[in-house]
Amino acid sequence: MSASHGYIDNKDDYLKRLRRIEGQIRGLQRMVEQEQYCIDILTQVSAATKALHSVALGLLDKHMAHCLVQAAAAGGEEADRKVREASDAIARLLRS
Amino acid sequence: MSASHGYIDNKDDYLKRLRRIEGQIRGLQRMVEQEQYCIDILTQVSAATKALHSVALGLLDKHMAHCLVQAAAAGGEEADRKVREASDAIARLLRS
Amino acid sequence: MSASHGYIDNKDDYLKRLRRIEGQIRGLQRMVEQEQYCIDILTQVSAATKALHSVALGLLDKHMAHCLVQAAAAGGEEADRKVREASDAIARLLRS
Amino acid sequence: MSASHGYIDNKDDYLKRLRRIEGQIRGLQRMVEQEQYCIDILTQVSAATKALHSVALGLLDKHMAHCLVQAAAAGGEEADRKVREASDAIARLLRS
Repeated sequence: MSASHGYIDNKDDYLKRLRRIEGQIRGLQRMVEQEQYCIDILTQVSAATKALHSVALGLLDKHMAHCLVQAAAAGGEEADRKVREASDAIARLLRS
Repeated sequence: MSASHGYIDNKDDYLKRLRRIEGQIRGLQRMVEQEQYCIDILTQVSAATKALHSVALGLLDKHMAHCLVQAAAAGGEEADRKVREASDAIARLLRS
Repeated sequence: MSASHGYIDNKDDYLKRLRRIEGQIRGLQRMVEQEQYCIDILTQVSAATKALHSVALGLLDKHMAHCLVQAAAAGGEEADRKVREASDAIARLLRS
Repeated sequence: MSASHGYIDNKDDYLKRLRRIEGQIRGLQRMVEQEQYCIDILTQVSAATKALHSVALGLLDKHMAHCLVQAAAAGGEEADRKVREASDAIARLLRS
């Protein structure tokens, strides 16, 4: 049931942040189009990556606070599966 | 002179990759809109971050191969400044 | 109660891994002593960092599977506090 | 010729920093031995990783300022090879 997703309460906030990141990516395209200086483009790439990581950390926090805690309260294999899923997601983030 | 920017030869390739990343970010917005599962959204965030890092590494490589090598060949303070700039950009990337 | 720490069951494994990382760090000191090539030293630094990240991901997984799940099963503010702690730890890792 | 390695001038500084990191890793072993709290161990892992990254950034800066700039001044294929090597090292760091 989607209502259990932790981030839903902040849906508008996440959408706003993702739209801002979309704007940053379009800004990067303009910079490349206009043949701007590589280092300036890299600065913008770092800013967009940082913003994406911040979104990820927010989602992960909400995920643990809701989905994981609910599964843990219910107990059993579902909790194990949720922990494994979260661990894998964190590992992917760290390697991205 | 913009013609010295290392990535210009691959401008279309970079634009294509950045448009694909823009598509990934819009995909993330749809996922949030449709209240999809947090872990699936995180997987997409990792994919977009990875793609951005790959663009950054490409730009950095071209930057060193052109701007940095040219400045080094010319010698003097400009080379030092370029190295410092590149180091700072790498540090920002690593921390992003 | 320390017995609740998730990693305790694998204590020997973690100690073995940390001793191997200590060996890598001492190897790095020898490389610098012997004035070896910077790029080779950087390769070893990356290997040590990767090993440290792997230890961190293992600890985090066990932490969520034990401490977090136990707190969640018990419910209340303690669960919230554990989630916040874990989120902060993940954020620090990602920025390190 | 090893005298061309950029970090040699700061050899003692790098050794000091690496010894401090070795101390951090041994501190981690003690924490695991004493079954300390997972989150506190993770905080120390992040600190050690950060210190390693800082060593890496320093080495990379010196490498570019010396080896890469020298190769670029000499010109030819050696410069290309050095740039490729540095790019690969940066990519490994970013993924570690």
